[in-house]
Amino acid sequence: MYDLAIIGGGPAGMTAAIYAARKVLNTVLLAPELGGQLLLTGNIQNWPGTIKTGGFELSESLRRHVEHYGVEQRPAEAVEIKRSAEFEVVTAEGKSIPAKALLIATGGRAKQLHVPGEEEFAGRGVSYCATCDAPLFKDKRVAVIGGGNTAFEGTIDLLPIATEIHVVDIADQWFADPILHGPVINAKKVSTYQGHRVVEIWGDQFVKGLVIEARQTGERKELAVEGLFVEIGRTPNTDFLRGFIALNEQGEIIVDRDFKTSVPGVFAAGDVIEGLDKQIVISAGQGAQAALSAYRYLLESGKLEERAT
Amino acid sequence: MYDLAIIGGGPAGMTAAIYAARKVLNTVLLAPELGGQLLLTGNIQNWPGTIKTGGFELSESLRRHVEHYGVEQRPAEAVEIKRSAEFEVVTAEGKSIPAKALLIATGGRAKQLHVPGEEEFAGRGVSYCATCDAPLFKDKRVAVIGGGNTAFEGTIDLLPIATEIHVVDIADQWFADPILHGPVINAKKVSTYQGHRVVEIWGDQFVKGLVIEARQTGERKELAVEGLFVEIGRTPNTDFLRGFIALNEQGEIIVDRDFKTSVPGVFAAGDVIEGLDKQIVISAGQGAQAALSAYRYLLESGKLEERAT
Repeated sequence: MYDLAIIGGGPAGMTAAIYAARKVLNTVLLAPELGGQLLLTGNIQNWPGTIKTGGFELSESLRRHVEHYGVEQRPAEAVEIKRSAEFEVVTAEGKSIPAKALLIATGGRAKQLHVPGEEEFAGRGVSYCATCDAPLFKDKRVAVIGGGNTAFEGTIDLLPIATEIHVVDIADQWFADPILHGPVINAKKVSTYQGHRVVEIWGDQFVKGLVIEARQTGERKELAVEGLFVEIGRTPNTDFLRGFIALNEQGEIIVDRDFKTSVPGVFAAGDVIEGLDKQIVISAGQGAQAALSAYRYLLESGKLEERAT
Repeated sequence: MYDLAIIGGGPAGMTAAIYAARKVLNTVLLAPELGGQLLLTGNIQNWPGTIKTGGFELSESLRRHVEHYGVEQRPAEAVEIKRSAEFEVVTAEGKSIPAKALLIATGGRAKQLHVPGEEEFAGRGVSYCATCDAPLFKDKRVAVIGGGNTAFEGTIDLLPIATEIHVVDIADQWFADPILHGPVINAKKVSTYQGHRVVEIWGDQFVKGLVIEARQTGERKELAVEGLFVEIGRTPNTDFLRGFIALNEQGEIIVDRDFKTSVPGVFAAGDVIEGLDKQIVISAGQGAQAALSAYRYLLESGKLEERAT
């Protein structure tokens, strides 16, 4: 029986593992592989104290830190949680892992366009996070795909950075809050294309442009850009939790300030919980908080009594 | 007029400055010096991805990151906030710094015993944070000073690590929650001393012991230890904010989940806000969140309209 099973191996899960190990909790870290979305991230310039690194490099340094504390790892995907005397995590291979408390840090993923060129140029001009990557596009031409708040905030991020911004949205109306419309639509360097879908992204080493198509008329247009931000939403990795804990409309886990979920003994942190800002350092901080909160839960519910002997 | 004035130069304030700069906010970072409590911290083993570093080293890497983004720094202490059309931060030298939004990250400090030897051995056996430093005392004898939740949780942290734990408290009753009493008081390696004050801490290179005195009888006793945890509470640096924003009973700033304080346009993060866990990575994550929340406030209140031109 583990004290704590951490499900998810990104920055939140790995930081939680470091903190749990330092509290000498008998901990298991369950994830198909360590790294999470870091492994999809090329250039990181906002991990505090590190002016520039790569996603793989940061993931490796977190992994080494986890291994330094000897946290047990199991390369497994959780597919179900059962409630017995304590908890049981059922893996894709059908194994059952018992734990007194759970910490869910399974993250999320950006929605993709699913068009030719998108995968090829991911990290080479195609980005899924303006907050993360806008500063890389100084004096470049860019496109932002989407018409919601994230797309509009991303566009506003890019206003003092990029030279030309094309905002392309499949809908005929902007879903972004009206307060954000003015700064985007009135900006001289912004052109907008409502009712347009992206058909193709092209380039050589890096993105050089995209083709968009008017939904009504089928008319196509080519936009020359060096960068393309896909801001059409995110999907949290919570399918295996439906019916077990409370999720919001977007499928994100609802937590309180102590990172407690709706089920006592189950904590959550990182991109999988509700919140507008999905950032590595935010996930790491939350992972630490959720681990310390889980520790306090174990203490206060008398589940660590063997320590006194 | 600055878009954002960040008050405080520890991990929360410096991370906020990095994030604000990446959003191209016209930002000023006000602090007597950069580093905050990091400058009082010797050995850091829980900054995720860095198995071991020093407080000065981590502070320097954060400072270089802030300077990489060219954030304006002013070595000044804020002593008052005035509300005019926007905000004005008044410094100890009587200067007034105007800003559209504020982010307070002035941190806090551990309460000290104020006994001989305490300053001399700070970082050389004397610690103010069991969560941070307990793992350094493997197979050592330690004392924990205090009788509240933090002292008891610190003691429980130390149970699987230290060989002998002396818990010394000046009060005649434990103020820790009753649920925590059993694991501490029943533990074989714990000795308790209620109604005792610490008179002196002694050692050579490192702590070798302390002298305690019974308040009632004046009887003194020497305890041989290699480590001593002072867990008698914390003081947030919020004196200059009294009457301006809502503070809790401990003087910590009350914030909502978006790190908004009771005054619109004023945000706060790090050790200065309410919360049980005061940790570097938690402060950094909150600094990022508060900066992004301040950015959203500026956008949504139309205070960044010049960007559209």
